[in-house]
Amino acid sequence: MLIQHLPLLSKKHIVLASASPRRAELLQGLGLKATIVPSTFAENLEISSFPCPGDYAVATAKEKALEVSLHSHNGGLADLVIGADTVVELDGRVLEKPSDAEDAFRMLSNLSGRQHKVYTGVSLVLPKVRDSVVGRQPFVRAFWEETKVEFAMLESEAIRAYIASGEPMDKAGAYGIQGIGGSFVKGVQGCYFNVMGFPVHRFSEEVNSLITAGYLNHAFDV
Amino acid sequence: MLIQHLPLLSKKHIVLASASPRRAELLQGLGLKATIVPSTFAENLEISSFPCPGDYAVATAKEKALEVSLHSHNGGLADLVIGADTVVELDGRVLEKPSDAEDAFRMLSNLSGRQHKVYTGVSLVLPKVRDSVVGRQPFVRAFWEETKVEFAMLESEAIRAYIASGEPMDKAGAYGIQGIGGSFVKGVQGCYFNVMGFPVHRFSEEVNSLITAGYLNHAFDV
Repeated sequence: MLIQHLPLLSKKHIVLASASPRRAELLQGLGLKATIVPSTFAENLEISSFPCPGDYAVATAKEKALEVSLHSHNGGLADLVIGADTVVELDGRVLEKPSDAEDAFRMLSNLSGRQHKVYTGVSLVLPKVRDSVVGRQPFVRAFWEETKVEFAMLESEAIRAYIASGEPMDKAGAYGIQGIGGSFVKGVQGCYFNVMGFPVHRFSEEVNSLITAGYLNHAFDV
Repeated sequence: MLIQHLPLLSKKHIVLASASPRRAELLQGLGLKATIVPSTFAENLEISSFPCPGDYAVATAKEKALEVSLHSHNGGLADLVIGADTVVELDGRVLEKPSDAEDAFRMLSNLSGRQHKVYTGVSLVLPKVRDSVVGRQPFVRAFWEETKVEFAMLESEAIRAYIASGEPMDKAGAYGIQGIGGSFVKGVQGCYFNVMGFPVHRFSEEVNSLITAGYLNHAFDV
């Protein structure tokens, strides 16, 4: 687990390459202090070129974190730069953020009464550690998690009221499970936090394993 | 769903008979305004007299809400008093809040690497509506939800660091899924919010059905 390494991690410069307040909250909830440096990566990878939505999310997460770690002053000096990307899949189609209210209505109508999958890809970039294979690149650990989400049947008036609340517009699949959208969710199978946008347990395990392998053990030396 | 009834519910006097900040947060997240009037019910029901932990949690939730609705000035004038109680079950034994650090250590060691169940019982008391069968009692709608929670293997040092953080002491089963304890949880099956202490979707459905049945439709008239 992560908790016994918090004294070590508190001495590290950790950057979250995401503007999502939910991800920042989850990191804080874990006891980690991170500087927020949102990536400007255009998120324009071609979905169809990836074997599954999880791989697409990981690739986007990697671009976000690498962009911040390579080009930003803050990110380049960090011990750990965290990138993440979340997508929703229904019937083999990937739902990202809705483009407008109509798009949100269509997404929520499709999700109503059915199960869908949420994928969050995470990449952990260590700018001070060179990759032993691709020598000039920083070391990257990347992974994704899948969670199944079962939606209740939604009346059209519930969907309309929800869109009017403004909550859906900046969220993959047009809902936020941690807000009013949580009342639409009958149940999940897997990591709940993954649906919020950050797989907390898996992240903890991966950071733990990086520490155990010696990647993050040295005191902050910049 | 609840969301299309928020204009109606905003005119109601809703009381949450619980001191749990997590439950208050979840109600707020749903868009509901509730007055907090913690119950002073002793929570001393005999667990062994109930067929399952869910029934025990419901009975405690009912006592909490009834106590507030019958004896408190605030609660008695309310349109809706909400009571809730959460328990954790492992190997047929119910875990409530730990009595001390040693008790918390024992509970967390037992939960480590295994699946357990969390039950939250909820009771919705309508002080202004008389029960048609038990005429002098207020109308009560009560229910419980079960969620399965899969814990990761926890090293002793992780458990000790977690107890030192103070998070476990006021929580059933000695962990909080919405805090650092969330990193211990590999996954859940069912309603995540139920583990936090309040089954948001089920609550929304039940309030919806009360409104549809005409129980909460009249404007606030006190």
